[in-house]
Amino acid sequence: MIIPEGFLFSAVSCEIKKKGKLDLGLIFCETEGTSWGVFTKNTVKAVPVILGKKLVKEPVTKGILVNSGVANACTGEEGLRRAQKLLSETSRLLKISEKSLLPASTGLIGEQLPLDKMLPKISELVANLSRENYILFSQAIMTTDTFPKIVSRTTQEGIKILGIAKGAGMIAPNMATMLAFILTDGEVPKSQLKKLLPKLVDQSFNTITIDGDTSTNDTVYMLSSNIKVIKNWKEFENKCREVVKELAYLIVKDGEGASKVIKIIVKGVTTKKDAQKLAQAIANSLLVKTAFYGEDPNWGRIFAAMGKTGIVFNPEEVEIYLNGIPWIKNFKSVTEENIIKEEMKKYELELLIKLKLGKISYELLTCDLTEEYVKLNAYYRS
Amino acid sequence: MIIPEGFLFSAVSCEIKKKGKLDLGLIFCETEGTSWGVFTKNTVKAVPVILGKKLVKEPVTKGILVNSGVANACTGEEGLRRAQKLLSETSRLLKISEKSLLPASTGLIGEQLPLDKMLPKISELVANLSRENYILFSQAIMTTDTFPKIVSRTTQEGIKILGIAKGAGMIAPNMATMLAFILTDGEVPKSQLKKLLPKLVDQSFNTITIDGDTSTNDTVYMLSSNIKVIKNWKEFENKCREVVKELAYLIVKDGEGASKVIKIIVKGVTTKKDAQKLAQAIANSLLVKTAFYGEDPNWGRIFAAMGKTGIVFNPEEVEIYLNGIPWIKNFKSVTEENIIKEEMKKYELELLIKLKLGKISYELLTCDLTEEYVKLNAYYRS
Repeated sequence: MIIPEGFLFSAVSCEIKKKGKLDLGLIFCETEGTSWGVFTKNTVKAVPVILGKKLVKEPVTKGILVNSGVANACTGEEGLRRAQKLLSETSRLLKISEKSLLPASTGLIGEQLPLDKMLPKISELVANLSRENYILFSQAIMTTDTFPKIVSRTTQEGIKILGIAKGAGMIAPNMATMLAFILTDGEVPKSQLKKLLPKLVDQSFNTITIDGDTSTNDTVYMLSSNIKVIKNWKEFENKCREVVKELAYLIVKDGEGASKVIKIIVKGVTTKKDAQKLAQAIANSLLVKTAFYGEDPNWGRIFAAMGKTGIVFNPEEVEIYLNGIPWIKNFKSVTEENIIKEEMKKYELELLIKLKLGKISYELLTCDLTEEYVKLNAYYRS
Repeated sequence: MIIPEGFLFSAVSCEIKKKGKLDLGLIFCETEGTSWGVFTKNTVKAVPVILGKKLVKEPVTKGILVNSGVANACTGEEGLRRAQKLLSETSRLLKISEKSLLPASTGLIGEQLPLDKMLPKISELVANLSRENYILFSQAIMTTDTFPKIVSRTTQEGIKILGIAKGAGMIAPNMATMLAFILTDGEVPKSQLKKLLPKLVDQSFNTITIDGDTSTNDTVYMLSSNIKVIKNWKEFENKCREVVKELAYLIVKDGEGASKVIKIIVKGVTTKKDAQKLAQAIANSLLVKTAFYGEDPNWGRIFAAMGKTGIVFNPEEVEIYLNGIPWIKNFKSVTEENIIKEEMKKYELELLIKLKLGKISYELLTCDLTEEYVKLNAYYRS
């Protein structure tokens, strides 16, 4: 894995989650870092989101402190007090300004951070900082994720970009119960980060949906150690985009209980908003999701989901393709059902819906809905 | 069961569904009936919906012909031709005007009505008409329903009202893959029916949601045999409301795979639209639904679902009650978790959410999400 210059990582277990599992992670920037953040649009915001929104406005960022197991959402004044205590204790030991450490949390809503377990572990967390520990860090931020999500790229002029994310359930535009941290050693002034990060998020994490739910804690931070001058800005941006798009893909791939990744492309619509609505209606329809899980070419459910949006279109003009194979034209299956059934058995599916209303397209990544999703979420806390 | 005067019922098996199961039903009105209908708002409308919308405008209605197994949706010109053939053949044998027979269908989208199996059965269907066969009729309209849904009431002046419905999956406001037929022997002119029926639907079938999906075929017909003069209109309307509300309850109770019925009441909101949005966000959140299934008092998911709506409220002011027990106040559980857990084991749950924004309330009935739902819908056609 390519690790950008100027970053150290660490993780410890405070036993917030099950015994022995890593649940507190730290990214430290050895230089005067610059950061920006994009946060959940849920009107119920977790404490770290409220704090992070302010702290990314500071000129210097030295690190990111993340815990999993407890979301510190719906925790009121006490939650704020605890988060601040955790940040101040960590910055004291790191010998940095309290305002240069960004917080993020993921886990159960409505529970307080167990400071009695966490504070005694911070010296160990700080002592363990190393370049190699990015793997431990990526594990410490996992909740129902089944694998750590790490992606990296280098530009031709040697600028390194590393992305680490966690996702799993509740992944709906915008964003999800997802945290992502994009690190680079390229020099990016805050004014540029402010433009770049929302664009990257819009093209990646905002185009995925697992179950239509949006969390209280969604956070994407981008942090630059400002070590290398970027000459080819365009290539840098492209590589950043590759990193976030791949992370978004990995999040869907690891959607709770998911057995398939489905790309939904809606073409030929008059506005982006309508194209998005149609794609989301299909992606979030439990009936469509379960049909994909059951590998059942029950295409009527796709039409029903589209019609539910209230967008007016002539369904007879809609064409549907599965993995490039013409499937439905003029309300008729134009390929033998067995062939479509066989195609549906694949792990990666691309569902293309062509309308004849306009010229706008929209793409969305989603997954199927399985019994495993229900099991996972019914007994999440047990 | 109380059967209104002037109605006969029948059902046969055309083997559209599995061998031997009833799948074609007929309601016949012996007098000059009056009808009205309320239909799906899905922009993809099934053929019987397109036809029904026109036919309820006719002055006289003599009957309702319903099939299950094939929805006759997304079937184009051929679907229209087949539905008309079926209606004309049935009215010919009933010796009534073709325009006085209302159609309804439920089942798979995208398949044509198998007329070769259906037409030969119509003489038997007509021959079997009787007052008692309402039970067979109620079975013939079932798809994934596990029990027939029949409710009746009589007013003090002896006006009888009978409601027969089918529901199961895809039940979201407005309406669902649901069909309901409300029959009465009270005299109700069409001008009154036009006002009464939408009101009844709004207070019953539009306040339930199973999985957030809306079907192409939703239809509620009300048909009066006009035999008895209604003097106490208010009592009549109340009894009608009882019938549709109970039918709506039965539909949720029989939601696909449902193990619990949950009434969600949102109080203290400024507009009906907002109250509705909040209730629907909670009711349709897979995370809330699975938490109820798992009997897990994970209240943070309720807040996350509410916040997703974008409606601004102070979450610390929100109070949550379960079956009347104060549960959450000021972000804290005010009752021991074990007591709430025990309460969640009940089959019928009432979740009351009190906000402090305004004075508007909204109620919604829903059910939990179980592995059984996924199984049922993944392998619906097998």
